[in-house]
Amino acid sequence: MLTYTPPLKDMLFVLNEVLAAPALLAQLPAHADVDTALMREVLEQAGRFARDVIFPLNASGDAQGCTFDQGKVTTPDGFADAYRQFLDGGWPALACATEDGGQGLPHTLNCALFEMLAATNHGWTMYPDLLHGAYSCLRAHGSEELKQRYLAKIATGEWLTTMCLTEAHAGSDLGLLRTRAVPQLDGSYKLSGDKIFISGGEHDLTDNILHLVLARLPDAPVGSKGISLFLVPKFLPEGQRNQVHCTGIEHKMGVHGSATCSMQFDGATGWLVGEAHRGLNAMFVMMNSARLHVGVQGLGLGETAYQNALAYARDRVQSRAVERPAGTSAPADAIVHHPAVQRLLMNQRVWVEGGRMLAYWSALMLDQAEHDPDVQQRTAINGLLALITPIVKAVLTQQGYDGASLALQVFGGHGYVVETGIEQTIRDARITMVYEGTNEIQAIDLLMRKVLADGGRCLFAWLDQVESFAHGVADSQDGSQAARHARQLLALTEGLRTRLARIDAARTEQPRLPYDIAGEFMHIVSHCAFGWLWLRAELAAAALIDQALGDAKCTTACYYYTFMLPATQQYFAVIDASLAAGNAFPKDLINQHAA
Amino acid sequence: MLTYTPPLKDMLFVLNEVLAAPALLAQLPAHADVDTALMREVLEQAGRFARDVIFPLNASGDAQGCTFDQGKVTTPDGFADAYRQFLDGGWPALACATEDGGQGLPHTLNCALFEMLAATNHGWTMYPDLLHGAYSCLRAHGSEELKQRYLAKIATGEWLTTMCLTEAHAGSDLGLLRTRAVPQLDGSYKLSGDKIFISGGEHDLTDNILHLVLARLPDAPVGSKGISLFLVPKFLPEGQRNQVHCTGIEHKMGVHGSATCSMQFDGATGWLVGEAHRGLNAMFVMMNSARLHVGVQGLGLGETAYQNALAYARDRVQSRAVERPAGTSAPADAIVHHPAVQRLLMNQRVWVEGGRMLAYWSALMLDQAEHDPDVQQRTAINGLLALITPIVKAVLTQQGYDGASLALQVFGGHGYVVETGIEQTIRDARITMVYEGTNEIQAIDLLMRKVLADGGRCLFAWLDQVESFAHGVADSQDGSQAARHARQLLALTEGLRTRLARIDAARTEQPRLPYDIAGEFMHIVSHCAFGWLWLRAELAAAALIDQALGDAKCTTACYYYTFMLPATQQYFAVIDASLAAGNAFPKDLINQHAA
Repeated sequence: MLTYTPPLKDMLFVLNEVLAAPALLAQLPAHADVDTALMREVLEQAGRFARDVIFPLNASGDAQGCTFDQGKVTTPDGFADAYRQFLDGGWPALACATEDGGQGLPHTLNCALFEMLAATNHGWTMYPDLLHGAYSCLRAHGSEELKQRYLAKIATGEWLTTMCLTEAHAGSDLGLLRTRAVPQLDGSYKLSGDKIFISGGEHDLTDNILHLVLARLPDAPVGSKGISLFLVPKFLPEGQRNQVHCTGIEHKMGVHGSATCSMQFDGATGWLVGEAHRGLNAMFVMMNSARLHVGVQGLGLGETAYQNALAYARDRVQSRAVERPAGTSAPADAIVHHPAVQRLLMNQRVWVEGGRMLAYWSALMLDQAEHDPDVQQRTAINGLLALITPIVKAVLTQQGYDGASLALQVFGGHGYVVETGIEQTIRDARITMVYEGTNEIQAIDLLMRKVLADGGRCLFAWLDQVESFAHGVADSQDGSQAARHARQLLALTEGLRTRLARIDAARTEQPRLPYDIAGEFMHIVSHCAFGWLWLRAELAAAALIDQALGDAKCTTACYYYTFMLPATQQYFAVIDASLAAGNAFPKDLINQHAA
Repeated sequence: MLTYTPPLKDMLFVLNEVLAAPALLAQLPAHADVDTALMREVLEQAGRFARDVIFPLNASGDAQGCTFDQGKVTTPDGFADAYRQFLDGGWPALACATEDGGQGLPHTLNCALFEMLAATNHGWTMYPDLLHGAYSCLRAHGSEELKQRYLAKIATGEWLTTMCLTEAHAGSDLGLLRTRAVPQLDGSYKLSGDKIFISGGEHDLTDNILHLVLARLPDAPVGSKGISLFLVPKFLPEGQRNQVHCTGIEHKMGVHGSATCSMQFDGATGWLVGEAHRGLNAMFVMMNSARLHVGVQGLGLGETAYQNALAYARDRVQSRAVERPAGTSAPADAIVHHPAVQRLLMNQRVWVEGGRMLAYWSALMLDQAEHDPDVQQRTAINGLLALITPIVKAVLTQQGYDGASLALQVFGGHGYVVETGIEQTIRDARITMVYEGTNEIQAIDLLMRKVLADGGRCLFAWLDQVESFAHGVADSQDGSQAARHARQLLALTEGLRTRLARIDAARTEQPRLPYDIAGEFMHIVSHCAFGWLWLRAELAAAALIDQALGDAKCTTACYYYTFMLPATQQYFAVIDASLAAGNAFPKDLINQHAA
């Protein structure tokens, strides 16, 4: 049975010491009153909810799963009651505007909340996970009438929402979707078609469910430029059942508590959200929010895995360590003393703590992008957030999955037993690398759309900041460990700049090159971010009053620079080799598999 | 639903063209008559058995699992019948000596057989997987009486066997085990104690089960030097039920078809195998065989994953590729044309084909170590096999697990659905990184026992061969792709030699250093092996009549050298950084987690 302790100490260290979140939020009129005390209070309450209400339902929800019977979906025992408590606590509305019935708190806190929810019950968390994205999407693109009717219901979480995108033949490529929307005289539309993989498409948590559905109008251009977005409620405003029904749920590797539904729209009534044919544009508001949330799921799952692996390693006694604890005469030591186990644990820890810095930094940018009084500043931060979003999604989910597997390795054979609980974490985490755009698609999004499409301007502007910071550390603390790390970071950003220039120069001749090495490129950029954040953490740690925490942070920063950052050498080598190989080699690759 | 085609073409390429197995086997009197035709015939029949008999039981066996009721274990429907067919076909006896009722065929063929068995039904394969190890162990260490009574039963597979090692508090550290064996007047022993995680401890496949059990004699020294090995049958020679019973089976992440039993020995009658207190020594015969088999499980699971990912990628149409198939006007292309998908597929393929070369090379060494007429040659090959065994176990299992996950990524959301089948492959594969010694223990075994303990002699002797071969290629084919690869390989082996010297010099001052970087060291050695084998494959491919196969091999070799071998740069960087960090940093690491 897994245990969970909300990692409040590290959360507050990241928010207060590394990111200076209170000071930055104080500059945003909407959050001027969010101080450290309020943040701590919210996090403590959120941690209690996660630990006491939904964590006890994690293993039982996995074992029981959802059941489907004649269009009705029943969630595992306790799920509906837990959602009621979530609602009563005002949690769904945490980051929604007060005028819509929300609490108007920063995304930064919402991010920490959802880290703890995913950490304690990923399956359950899937139900409210899309709420804020749907809220933002409707708020940005919905008509006044739709907003009037639905925005507060979403903000408060009284009604849950879905994203209806995927069809059996249209997953990554939404341009292929076939669901049709036919305009009616009263301004509404009738939608017909079949959607699959709809999380929370049907359930027993709320009275109504609001589906955000991508479909084609009769005059729509082919491809992704002919897709429109519609809001389709399960129950119509007058109370009648709408013609949208769940036809079955998937039997999945994990997240058994989350109902993954096939949905049939059979002339269902809906209303256009945003402009006709511009549905993907509107949906991307929701998708970007969802991508950050998915990354945070990886973070939360990784945290739980790490906590439990560490506890087991301290408890499990096996073999004598090469360096034994002082004064012991026992026949064997706790495995936490074995270097190989320490490597497994540190690999998890450095990712979890690094991932937390990356995720919270992104959430803070979301707050700034929404509320900074300076429009230019908002635009700049929006650009950087768009650049970082695919990294949060892809890298944190990979780390969450890998971290869970490392944790199982610490448990040894006991980890493979269902009752231990860690194998569920692996199964749950696996989906995060796939949904909301596979991690491969995130890497392509980063390199093609977020970097090459704007000539690298946004990336370079951020690298300028990173380098200026690193130069400052290298110069002012010469001879220190931090200065050594700063120079490693500078070498990394320089390597990235060089490679980007080469990739950009080569792609006319080698059009597939960026697609071949997009994954390596993404990991290098992620290391620039991790290196920068760990350097900031290292400096912040040195100034801490809590010396134990400070020492631990410095050690982990050092571990990052010693054991993790060298992975970039492999990525550079792959990019260099691909550049050198020219066109001949990729052509062979195609032949290899397409034959 | 997964499909499986026995990869006979690649198996025969590896055996005939890369390893020249027929010529090498011809030099062993025991296998002088094993020619290409016989090998092909055996592999074809084995492939048919795997594909037609046990593969259809793979998903159903996972869904149904084993059941336990009052000491009785029932395996999934069809398992017992399939085992009967396995027995009737003479497969358990494939590599056992003809004088013991076996077929006297090489381990090399047995290895290929077990690759296909694991590829098609890992859970089922667990039952006969230990047979050959038990046979070798008893043959080497059993008394004449025990051999007379049991060897043929094991060789033919009429009775199945187990390894009873683990106890709840003694897993990796067998020195802690507590099961007691008390000598009786008739020369037998009474065993008492509890064992866990005993694969096939109880089942309905055979009339009798022979347990090989580690236990302590009353006068045993403490620790691992006080452990003896016993044979304990479920039914005694006179037919009475022995006092060994299954008390329950584990509920596991995967391999549901394999019964993982808790066993209670309650004054059970057994007989000593080998010398008193030297049980680990005798058991290691079995363990080494088991470790090779576990590596081969990783290979088989990876093969099935790759085959299915490739088939899906050819079939699934989604988005336009950056380089479209000639003449197409379709709205989207098969995803096999997308560079990101090609990378996922090639990462699997290069591991599967490379892993096959490594595994079959090891099996061939096992044949040579047993049957080479020259005793010095036998000793030398035994040493090299002992060096390579932990690599086969750890690296091939990691690759199998990672490969299955890459395959799921190709399937996208569909891969997360149970009915697709690939998620079972991930769940099944996960145990291979843990059992028969965790992969971390394999890495330590390699560096501490197989390399540093003999001053690197065995490793260097093999590296000499590798380098001499690479020099030959670099010199004779200057300017060719193969020569470029040969020089990459030479740089790698030189880097390994340098690091090993530094590690050896530093370890007096930094005793935990080798334990810290054992994983990186193992991966570097594995790349020396993969690089050597891929270079051999590349040369062999150039001489093939089947030009399509030859071209594909050359491309895959090139992929290995371009995309995979650069990982060694990271491993070197980690070792160098650890050497440079000295003692201070590791000490911090201990404090970090032990607190």
